[in-house]
Parts: sequence; structure tokens; C-alpha cells
Amino acid sequence: MIDSVAVIGLGLMGGSLARDLAARGVRVFGFDRDPHSLQLALTENVIASALADDFSGIEKAQAVVLAVPVKAAHRVLEKCAPRVEQATLITDVGSVKREIQSTAAKLGLGDRFVGAHPFTGDHRAGWSASQIGLYQDARVFLCPSEGTRPDALALAEELWRAVGAAPVVTSAGEHDQRIAWTSHLPQVTATAVAHALEKHGILPDDLGPGGRSVTRLAGSDAEMWTDIAMENSAAIDTAIAEIEKQLSSARAAIRSGDASAVRAFFSDGAGWAARAAVTV
Amino acid sequence: MIDSVAVIGLGLMGGSLARDLAARGVRVFGFDRDPHSLQLALTENVIASALADDFSGIEKAQAVVLAVPVKAAHRVLEKCAPRVEQATLITDVGSVKREIQSTAAKLGLGDRFVGAHPFTGDHRAGWSASQIGLYQDARVFLCPSEGTRPDALALAEELWRAVGAAPVVTSAGEHDQRIAWTSHLPQVTATAVAHALEKHGILPDDLGPGGRSVTRLAGSDAEMWTDIAMENSAAIDTAIAEIEKQLSSARAAIRSGDASAVRAFFSDGAGWAARAAVTV
Repeated sequence: MIDSVAVIGLGLMGGSLARDLAARGVRVFGFDRDPHSLQLALTENVIASALADDFSGIEKAQAVVLAVPVKAAHRVLEKCAPRVEQATLITDVGSVKREIQSTAAKLGLGDRFVGAHPFTGDHRAGWSASQIGLYQDARVFLCPSEGTRPDALALAEELWRAVGAAPVVTSAGEHDQRIAWTSHLPQVTATAVAHALEKHGILPDDLGPGGRSVTRLAGSDAEMWTDIAMENSAAIDTAIAEIEKQLSSARAAIRSGDASAVRAFFSDGAGWAARAAVTV
Repeated sequence: MIDSVAVIGLGLMGGSLARDLAARGVRVFGFDRDPHSLQLALTENVIASALADDFSGIEKAQAVVLAVPVKAAHRVLEKCAPRVEQATLITDVGSVKREIQSTAAKLGLGDRFVGAHPFTGDHRAGWSASQIGLYQDARVFLCPSEGTRPDALALAEELWRAVGAAPVVTSAGEHDQRIAWTSHLPQVTATAVAHALEKHGILPDDLGPGGRSVTRLAGSDAEMWTDIAMENSAAIDTAIAEIEKQLSSARAAIRSGDASAVRAFFSDGAGWAARAAVTV
């Protein structure tokens, strides 16, 4: 059973993970660049001790979890590297997996690095948004590389199962392709709708429940999404091109008054919405 | 105080209105083309009596509410017209207001017709989706024409206030322009995302909470939305063109790796999401 975990970054993802692990009796070492969040995590007895600014103290952790924005994760991993020789597992929680895997390999951590992407979240961010149970029943994608040691992958599976998540093992490349559709495309679309509405003088409170549902993600953390978009740009480019194509074809049908094409557009969409997944 | 209302169409909107009115002691006459829904509304004591197929029985209603799909509303209004001479108010609940107003005028009902659009709903449809309290705190747009009698408008306001809604008076033309952005654009976008995902083999269960939120509306009733898109096509055309433009510009920024443009895209979207409405 896993007994000690270092969590670097105590925001929504890291903070929630630390809360769940602590609640299960795991000794959690924590770090956050915001001293206030770090202090709260200590005061609330979520973390047993705070790591120093140079990450000293991390040496005792069986698993190290980077829960910082995608771009910052590279620097943080580099900074950890000299101190994590004892760790069985080094992992992260970012939404893009190829580049961080490549950084881990360059740092000589490839055998113990298992990229992870818990497929849950919230448009809110920070320690104040962290919560017990965030990972309950959530899928978490685990992306070992060819050189990853079996005990590292096994510990990653154990870690996520311990907080109620359901691990799905895939490759970093496949993950990044797929997530461009399931997550990055919805985010970009929600933000684009926000821009279109703003340009037309529509504010969030002017929307009904449907419009709010479509634009809810627009409130997501901009810095986090900038990093994600930059690291998965080619796959996102393809996905946006497809949604543009779909919108353009819907528009042509509506504009020309082609009722049967418009009906097919809405009913095929409703048909999709009614489908149950065959695979996870 | 309003004492009798005929509700034609006992789906989500009409059924919910009938439930709320009945709960407040209003005598509700109901009709639905589906005999099963009509029977349930009688059995559950939501409607006091069922109108006949030729709408006989409607003569006693102080207010007549058409709660049928946008396109069907024209035929239903024509069918009602000879029998509603006693009614103070004839109204509807459709998402598009100009064309039905024009039909009412042609039928000589312009002085008593007040188009209404309660800005609430659900992607589910039918009597089984109808519920008490659907209109609580919802805005309802009321669109009188120049020839509408003040007592008709006053009764429309009273009717909607009685079920907890907040009436907002506007013109049919302004309503249709604005609703293309606040409601029709989000619907078309959600359906377009569903198409893009389907094409890439992604099913609803493959999505996380964010993707589900963006695509939830794709499950909306296709027939209803076909009617709406056909009746408000010009305004929807303009709105889709704008979202295409926003997506294209986001894609250009992501594709070219322009981090500051990508950051501006996400942070302006988040800024919009954080804004409170200045006006209703």
C-alpha cells in the first residue's frame, strides 16, 4: 500500500488529490508557490509537511505528483530530478502527455515516469476550489512509455484507484490525439462562443440554461489553457477545422432554407447524444 | 385574477405551465395530439377538461396558450381563431416571435395576441418532462405588436407572474435578433460539436464534465429546432458566421504557435465569463 506522496502544486487538482490521500491515511508532503495555499494545506492537516523551496524533503516520498500547469511542469520536473532517486513513481496530472514524457526521458526519469491525466475538473481553480471526492469515478488516463518499469505503472494505478478513479492505460500519443477532441475542442468552442456573444453585447446573465451550459467552460483558467493549446496545437488545429466545417455546412443549410438538411443536422446530433459508449 | 386558461400542447412547456396554473387554482382546459399525454394530464388532475379535436370547449377560456412547435403554431392558431372571440389574451411559448405575430395579425387576432417566449427549458421534451416550477425566476419575453390592447398585455404579464416568471417586454423583431445569439447560436454550436465528435468516433460517455456541458444541448428535440432555424434563419446565419470567424482566428493563433494571441483568446473569454450583466 502506498504510504507517502509528494504533491507539488496545491490547486484544484493537486489540492483535491492531497485531500483524498490524507483522508486515506497517506502521508502527504506538499508544495505550492503561493505561501498562503501552502499554509492552509498545513493548517487543515491535509499535508503532513511542506517541502522547502528547493524541494528538499521530497526524497522520502514513494510517489511524486506534479500538479502544476502544463508548461511549468517541465521546469518543476527538472528541479525535482536530482532529489527523487528513491521514488518508485513520478507522475503528473496535465491535460497533454507527449511533451512531458519526452522531458522525463531527457532527465533520465523515463523508467519511473508515468504521465497521468485525470479526466475531471472544474472551471474553478486554486486551493479554494480543491475538494474531497473530485476523482471519484473519474477516468484517469495513464501513459507509460516503452521504458517505464512495471512497478511504476502499478503504483500509478494503485494511487489513482485509492482516490476512487478508474485508470485507463494508453500511450501519450494516442491520448493527446483523442483529448484534442474530447476536451480541447469543447474548451476552444466554449471560449469562441463567449467571444461571439461579447462582440454582440450579450453578457452571461443574458443567457438561458442552454447558453450557460455551452459557455460554462469559457471561465476556465486562461494560463492553463494557453499551455495546453501550445503543447497540443497540431491535434487541436485539426479538431477546430472539423467544427468549422460542421458549422459552415449547418449554416449553408439554414441560410438556403433547406429544411430536410437542417432537420438531418439536428436529428443526427440528437442521435449522437442518445448513444451509449461502446468503449471507455 | 386570471381564472381559466386553455393550453394547447402538453409537452415540456405547456405541461409545466398547466401544472403550475392548476396548482394555483386556475381552471385549465388542455389539448394534446397525443391521446396518452392528454389522458395523463386529466388523470393527474392537471387539466380540468380536455378540449375536443376541433378545439370546442376553448370558448370559455380567458387566455389561450399555444405550446406547440413553432411551425405547427401557425396552423393551430388558424384553427383556434373562430373560437376565441371571448378570450382576452391569445399567446404562445415559441422561441421565434416575428412570424407568429404576423400570422395572428392576418387572422384578425392582432389586438389580443401577445407572443411570449419563456427563456427556460430543458433538452428533454414531452409531458413526461413537464414539471412544477419550470418557470420560477425565468425571464419571459413578451412581444406585443403596435395594435395589441393594453388588457391583453396586462393579462399576459399576470399569467407569467402567476407561475413565478419575470416578464420582459420587447418587440418581436428585437427578440428574434437577440435570441439568435443567446439561444439559437449555442444550440447550433452544441449540435455541430456533436457532429465533429461523432465523425471522429467519440461518444458522449467518452467526454468529461466540460465536454458534456458543451454538448448537452445536442440532445434537444430536432423537430422543434428545425422549425426555429427555418423561422429565424437570417439572424442565425449572422450568428454562425461570427462563431466561425472566432474559431478561425483562434485556430490561426494556435496553429502558428502565437502564445500571446492564444492567451488573449482564453483570457478575454474568461473575462467575459466573469462579467455580471448590466441589463436584463
